[in-house]
Amino acid sequence: MTSALHHWLNSFDAQSAGREIHAFATEAYPICRSITGDGVRQTLSLLNAIAPLEVHEVPSGTPVFDWNVPREWNVREAWIKDPNGNRVVDFADHNLHLLGYSVPTAQTMPLADLQEHLYSLPEKPSVIPYRTSYYKDRWGFCLSHETREGLPEGNYEVFVDTTLEDGHLSYGEVFLPGETDETVLISAHVCHPSLANDNLSALGVCAHLARLLSGVQRRYSYRFLFLPGTIGAITWLATREDDARRVVHGLVAANLGDSGAFHYKKSRRGDALIDRAAQQVLADAGEPYEVEDFVPFGYDERQYCSPGFNLPVGSLTRTPWGRYPEYHTSDDNLELIRPEALGESLRRYLEVIFVLENEARYRNLNPNCEPQLGKRGLYRTIGGDDGGRERELALLWVLNQSDGDNSLLDIAQRSGMSFRRIAEAAAALREAALLEPV
Amino acid sequence: MTSALHHWLNSFDAQSAGREIHAFATEAYPICRSITGDGVRQTLSLLNAIAPLEVHEVPSGTPVFDWNVPREWNVREAWIKDPNGNRVVDFADHNLHLLGYSVPTAQTMPLADLQEHLYSLPEKPSVIPYRTSYYKDRWGFCLSHETREGLPEGNYEVFVDTTLEDGHLSYGEVFLPGETDETVLISAHVCHPSLANDNLSALGVCAHLARLLSGVQRRYSYRFLFLPGTIGAITWLATREDDARRVVHGLVAANLGDSGAFHYKKSRRGDALIDRAAQQVLADAGEPYEVEDFVPFGYDERQYCSPGFNLPVGSLTRTPWGRYPEYHTSDDNLELIRPEALGESLRRYLEVIFVLENEARYRNLNPNCEPQLGKRGLYRTIGGDDGGRERELALLWVLNQSDGDNSLLDIAQRSGMSFRRIAEAAAALREAALLEPV
Amino acid sequence: MTSALHHWLNSFDAQSAGREIHAFATEAYPICRSITGDGVRQTLSLLNAIAPLEVHEVPSGTPVFDWNVPREWNVREAWIKDPNGNRVVDFADHNLHLLGYSVPTAQTMPLADLQEHLYSLPEKPSVIPYRTSYYKDRWGFCLSHETREGLPEGNYEVFVDTTLEDGHLSYGEVFLPGETDETVLISAHVCHPSLANDNLSALGVCAHLARLLSGVQRRYSYRFLFLPGTIGAITWLATREDDARRVVHGLVAANLGDSGAFHYKKSRRGDALIDRAAQQVLADAGEPYEVEDFVPFGYDERQYCSPGFNLPVGSLTRTPWGRYPEYHTSDDNLELIRPEALGESLRRYLEVIFVLENEARYRNLNPNCEPQLGKRGLYRTIGGDDGGRERELALLWVLNQSDGDNSLLDIAQRSGMSFRRIAEAAAALREAALLEPV
Repeated sequence: MTSALHHWLNSFDAQSAGREIHAFATEAYPICRSITGDGVRQTLSLLNAIAPLEVHEVPSGTPVFDWNVPREWNVREAWIKDPNGNRVVDFADHNLHLLGYSVPTAQTMPLADLQEHLYSLPEKPSVIPYRTSYYKDRWGFCLSHETREGLPEGNYEVFVDTTLEDGHLSYGEVFLPGETDETVLISAHVCHPSLANDNLSALGVCAHLARLLSGVQRRYSYRFLFLPGTIGAITWLATREDDARRVVHGLVAANLGDSGAFHYKKSRRGDALIDRAAQQVLADAGEPYEVEDFVPFGYDERQYCSPGFNLPVGSLTRTPWGRYPEYHTSDDNLELIRPEALGESLRRYLEVIFVLENEARYRNLNPNCEPQLGKRGLYRTIGGDDGGRERELALLWVLNQSDGDNSLLDIAQRSGMSFRRIAEAAAALREAALLEPV
Repeated sequence: MTSALHHWLNSFDAQSAGREIHAFATEAYPICRSITGDGVRQTLSLLNAIAPLEVHEVPSGTPVFDWNVPREWNVREAWIKDPNGNRVVDFADHNLHLLGYSVPTAQTMPLADLQEHLYSLPEKPSVIPYRTSYYKDRWGFCLSHETREGLPEGNYEVFVDTTLEDGHLSYGEVFLPGETDETVLISAHVCHPSLANDNLSALGVCAHLARLLSGVQRRYSYRFLFLPGTIGAITWLATREDDARRVVHGLVAANLGDSGAFHYKKSRRGDALIDRAAQQVLADAGEPYEVEDFVPFGYDERQYCSPGFNLPVGSLTRTPWGRYPEYHTSDDNLELIRPEALGESLRRYLEVIFVLENEARYRNLNPNCEPQLGKRGLYRTIGGDDGGRERELALLWVLNQSDGDNSLLDIAQRSGMSFRRIAEAAAALREAALLEPV
Repeated sequence: MTSALHHWLNSFDAQSAGREIHAFATEAYPICRSITGDGVRQTLSLLNAIAPLEVHEVPSGTPVFDWNVPREWNVREAWIKDPNGNRVVDFADHNLHLLGYSVPTAQTMPLADLQEHLYSLPEKPSVIPYRTSYYKDRWGFCLSHETREGLPEGNYEVFVDTTLEDGHLSYGEVFLPGETDETVLISAHVCHPSLANDNLSALGVCAHLARLLSGVQRRYSYRFLFLPGTIGAITWLATREDDARRVVHGLVAANLGDSGAFHYKKSRRGDALIDRAAQQVLADAGEPYEVEDFVPFGYDERQYCSPGFNLPVGSLTRTPWGRYPEYHTSDDNLELIRPEALGESLRRYLEVIFVLENEARYRNLNPNCEPQLGKRGLYRTIGGDDGGRERELALLWVLNQSDGDNSLLDIAQRSGMSFRRIAEAAAALREAALLEPV
């Protein structure tokens, strides 16, 4: 696999990949997704066209640890008519208008009473906020504060034609077997309606990553999950505990299309290989990035890193949730996400996987003093000539540190060289029979 | 105890406590204390009125490790008359005037000879310095440099009417038994004459702390020592070694009335619970503070942290010894110490004890994924509503980290939240049967 | 040994030592050294006059790990005549002119062909660079870029009268036995031609160090090696493996005469005693210095720290190789190195050895509370008198920390005091029977 991945990394066309991911997002954007329902199924179907996946349907009411799989929610129609009979808020215009999991209703009420069912953002008056009420029966509408302020006094007709009844929670899964059943988990939430960065960006990146990985020999098995946030991860962990316990590295993917710097949030363990690999990749890229210690809120790393599982799962994103102004509003749209950003995000994921696949400990087969690299064509012959040193230094680092204890990642960190260069040196030394795997 | 202490901390009236401590200091200020003698006994009697204490009297000559309990020193009168018969220096005016442990004398001598027995501070010409000679027989007088400069030539009459003879070393002790005989030691030196911050401030704070603690259920036992510096601590450690070996946390109290920032000096161990607790409390208070590694000089932590004991005893003060200009001079008087400062000092001590009493490890009883806090009334029901997050985050932190290894203090440190908030979250989760003590 | 070394350190005359070392460098400078040959032998002979040494001769072809001892190289004559018959480049003028290990040749060729055998530095046009070709048969000349630019078109006569044939690799060794055969290794490369800082400076410093150490009682054995870089160290390690495995501390010496700050490069282990000792000495000196982690390039620490040996060998230099503008050019001459710098370098080496020889763990024989230092004449008798504190604080530090676990170096680091002061305090406490070695 090393060489296949290596080839990709060198020939990877981030622009082209980014355009494909953006095209997926454009197609999926209008769909009304929630934690259950047909919108999720339609989205999984679009992902399936990129990377074939299995759709799992878990019945409402299924007990999953401390929770139960909720009723399935679907929307036919939802609107508010003002005293003049105008539809001033309409789900057909934007699916953020309806409070997620709104129960059905049909009634007429004065504006004052209606206000208790309205959600807007006075500090961002032109955008529609995103709100849900999964675990308490409510109905409500989200609208721009400007629209809300312009509503005249009088009686309003409210119509919410939804179904909230026993059905299923749907999630998608791609499983790519490897040489071992030790598994790399890549998980992305599929539960948000028309929000582009959060999380169509990551759904697209992950599906393309799965497609790329399906074509190469793999040391690890890979499991991609496209599931509703929180309850989806809990459902998967509860119903697939054996698979979960085989996860040895993992990433939660989200917010991968905006123009912000990459951000890595460590797993609860903090020093797992995935934590070191992700940080190495971001450092090697030579661009600004941020690293944050684990905190028990955010996306589904909350569940994967709950103390009963404590899986080594971090989260690699661009700007994290809640830290960009468009977050959870109608401004998180197709303009916020850019093809180049999406393509570079996919590249970082590939690079992390390159580290995971190639990380290993070696033993120097000529441990007493340096071997004579010159006679093997690995070294300059003119002493004092300083050209082309980097490649030679990587050889010296790998030879010096490969005592069976230090791994390639250890060596990259100690030397300050990129993992890629260290891995290349190790490959050259193996070819010269100077190194063996431990 | 948790709830009682919790209640205090919330209702603690620092102003009122500070005024009471200052009143004690005002009463005790004129007394001439030294490492032995009636001044110590009078001071212990004043402390006894705040918190009943036991007075121990250890005979002179008692061997205490490498030392012997010294002779007891008492002063009746001491003065110098100038050539004109004027008392130019008089112990009756200020007890700092007499070199501590001066031997008796009565003689007349020219100024030049007298000079060898005078102590003053040229760089602070208006103050009387504090000097002692416990272990070499001397007599001497301390005076302002201004006064000294004004002494006319001629013969001076010197009269020192002291007794330095077999007697006792006196110290006071408050012992408050707890659920366990593991003991928290609070120690303050009682040996200084008319110096207010050093150490009437700490004597008063500790006596009030003892009074407060006497009224609540205690997990730990508490031992308060009011003893002469160095020889008192050595005497206690030598004669009460069994009690000393039961000390599991401790603080040496001094300089608690000035307006400076709090200062914590770590125990010799450096990472004992008392070290972590004190730093957490100072950080949680949100005000500037300083932390210093252990050094083998200062107050009686020198003895408690000697290698044969190595007790986990730090020192929590305001401005440390030697770092405020009034230190060991007549300017360390009742104006230097302020009621508000004294009250806040007592609050910090209470807060440290709150940490010690409540520090514990818990196990999350629902370790696989997060429990559903909403159905237990512990969580918001509208997703995306950002109000009141802090309390919820504390719940998530405690749940996520409570794997039986991490303590509440660990969680406070990792989360960046105050110990108090984390302890409150743990209490709420225990009530909801989601947590059990390990 | 402690007291002898201590005496030296206090009475060491850096100026005088520096002048002697500079005199050695002046004498050795014109000699043409390489990794083999008579120039090395002549240099060893000069060193022998300072500190008697044993010369080892290892035959060409001897297998040494992955290498073979190379043929011996000697130069009789080498020059280039321009079309007018002028010797424009002549080994007789400067031994840097000839590419090291040039094979013999005698031919005439046009300038264009000659150019492929010339080495100069366009960015430093007035200096002759230093170049070698040990492991590929070549001939070549090094010259200033100015000279090169001035060469007229036409045919050039080239004459290289060298021998490159079976002979020996020569190295010098001083062994000073100590109380134990645990050995301190001091190694300096002897293979460079007329370069003063690199490495006549270190050869001279090390020879004087050996002379000084030969006159005192030693806890450790000391082994000084004067050998060709890389192949010399490999040869020694391969042929003297038993001696090598007895090395418990070591330093590679180079570049000790320039005016730059001291620089310590850690051993591969990073936390060996030599690493801590060298850093302590540099810190104690109160002058700027640099510390660098181990990297597997530089001087012979590359070989000593190869994973099969992993000896605790660091490198103490002034400006490291490649970081001063005169490096590996004809500007690295006798003016670059200064007697004062050489003398101070020797002092630092002596001080490191002082730490190694005196580093020890002690046990406080009066561990419960502080002993009464006053009655032993080790302490002031007037409390509050702040004069002469430093010496007393050192006593308190040693007493407090000497629990059998902390060494004097640990105590120096923790206290922020110099190793020397801590070692003096320990000596005083041993004399007072308050301390015993562990």
